[in-house]
Amino acid sequence: MDIQPLLSHIELELQRQVSRLDQPRTRSFHEMLTYHMGWTGEGAGPNATGKRIRPLMVLLCSAACGGDWKTALPAAAAVELVHNFSLVHDDIQDNSPKRRGRDTAWVKWGAPMAINVGDALFVISSQAIMDLKIHHPAETVILAAEILHHTCLELTRGQFLDMSYEERKDLTVEDYWPMISGKTAALLSACCHLGALLGGADEEKQEAYRSFGQYLGLAFQVQDDILGIWGDEKVIGKSVASDLVEGKNSLPVLASLGKNGRFAQRWAEGPIKPDEVEEVARILASEGGLIAAQDAAKQMTDLALTSLREADPQGEAGEALFGLTNKLLNRDQ
Amino acid sequence: MDIQPLLSHIELELQRQVSRLDQPRTRSFHEMLTYHMGWTGEGAGPNATGKRIRPLMVLLCSAACGGDWKTALPAAAAVELVHNFSLVHDDIQDNSPKRRGRDTAWVKWGAPMAINVGDALFVISSQAIMDLKIHHPAETVILAAEILHHTCLELTRGQFLDMSYEERKDLTVEDYWPMISGKTAALLSACCHLGALLGGADEEKQEAYRSFGQYLGLAFQVQDDILGIWGDEKVIGKSVASDLVEGKNSLPVLASLGKNGRFAQRWAEGPIKPDEVEEVARILASEGGLIAAQDAAKQMTDLALTSLREADPQGEAGEALFGLTNKLLNRDQ
Repeated sequence: MDIQPLLSHIELELQRQVSRLDQPRTRSFHEMLTYHMGWTGEGAGPNATGKRIRPLMVLLCSAACGGDWKTALPAAAAVELVHNFSLVHDDIQDNSPKRRGRDTAWVKWGAPMAINVGDALFVISSQAIMDLKIHHPAETVILAAEILHHTCLELTRGQFLDMSYEERKDLTVEDYWPMISGKTAALLSACCHLGALLGGADEEKQEAYRSFGQYLGLAFQVQDDILGIWGDEKVIGKSVASDLVEGKNSLPVLASLGKNGRFAQRWAEGPIKPDEVEEVARILASEGGLIAAQDAAKQMTDLALTSLREADPQGEAGEALFGLTNKLLNRDQ
Repeated sequence: MDIQPLLSHIELELQRQVSRLDQPRTRSFHEMLTYHMGWTGEGAGPNATGKRIRPLMVLLCSAACGGDWKTALPAAAAVELVHNFSLVHDDIQDNSPKRRGRDTAWVKWGAPMAINVGDALFVISSQAIMDLKIHHPAETVILAAEILHHTCLELTRGQFLDMSYEERKDLTVEDYWPMISGKTAALLSACCHLGALLGGADEEKQEAYRSFGQYLGLAFQVQDDILGIWGDEKVIGKSVASDLVEGKNSLPVLASLGKNGRFAQRWAEGPIKPDEVEEVARILASEGGLIAAQDAAKQMTDLALTSLREADPQGEAGEALFGLTNKLLNRDQ
């Protein structure tokens, strides 16, 4: 299955949804959103939009259940808008100056405006999901909205945990999973669940898709953690050092803290400086941080693939779904 | 009609909705929301919750159209949660340290956490409105959600205008109405519209209620602007000076700027200092700022009452609605 038409329709639907703000007096507000979405401003283009993996998942899962993916487009737009709302607020909360190589919204327009940009993306995601009513029964639209909103609440819970961990010195690997379940896995899980719902799958099958998305999200995040410390700088486009320098509570870090070895000692002493990173990453690997994360990634990957086989996606869309999954789980970027 | 039972049910429904966060690992996140809602922490109680005017409007309009107000409770909770989400983000954006006499969320937990508190209130408002499905047809729930989300987008537009005005030196009274339509009137309008929809009113009647809420909101805001400059400090519980000192683009100010008199000259020179306030307020009044605002308030009040008579609210709830409206439009606090 050629996914290009899906990606084009996703982009068109997103633009249609965001154009709700393209009104007299708020055109420059609209431009803030189109900038963040990667469509306008310096550096606009495919590199700035991101890969639209979440909306693609919605459409592929829907089609793999026998549905017409075009009728799922409002849901696809909704999940991508939720993702982008969370990025805009995240960047303010983390004080991150760059996103996909470009200045973040708060750097360009200040935190107050950027808070409002995130809020608007969030509102539009709720409006987008309601547009499902054009092609789906009202009861289905409500179920879809409930899935989306539940996920959004999980996002705020994950975000809370992430921020509250910053002050904690007693974190273990047990604290890791609830955080990334909310921050990363919940939304991918919702994508697959929504796709199955809109594709007409029964509840058991919906659950298999939901579960697939959850494990895929967990596997994806653990891989991201590994790449954030040991990845190739040229490939991932940001300093490989950044996760250690930023003090991110990633899985390799939390898995090693419990061992009270040289890494834990250094971590407790305060921020890692850029020129220490290579050495600290080496110690972290030698004390089992890398292997622990690789094992976890493998485990989550296996669970994701088991769930996907259980979901038994059909046709060309099913093949594309397996293809995309394998690409996501074997990425080096 | 005794509104006490309505207020009690509103509070219970709000607590039930917010308790979605009362889960293992996020109890202290839940507490941030219950603090902001006025239920817990220092200074908790009726003064900290606010008057719950918006949810009350939903219930009264619903009952005045012949509906059972209890079935409208999820919508009542939803509008109050939207209101509170906007307050939490507003306080960060305006750098306001106090809200209803208590420390604001960002003062207590920092801006990053407070952004997340607002986001969670927003998510829960979307979840609350879906709970209408227990007592209303799915099609009605979707209409209600669309009214709510449309209003939320208007809120972000109003907020954008408000913030973008801070840098502008060329504002006139023409710039005032679109801003407060979004910031204040849209939500009150949605309250009355939602109440009428859920009370079973036909579209024409819904429109009369919607229009009533819109004008009520505009009248209310203009009054607030007047009180913010010439109100009695002891009555409104914040410094009467604050609107002038804070440089707020209120109606009296914008109405006077076009006259290029002594007030406009002083305003252009930079922030008003607390010890100048009495004199500047006197000049503003002498140059017509007070009368212009009083005229506008009177006009909006008349339009609100005309719409309300057109809506023709019935029974005890109808009387209570007229009573509450008169109280809101003749307030001194």
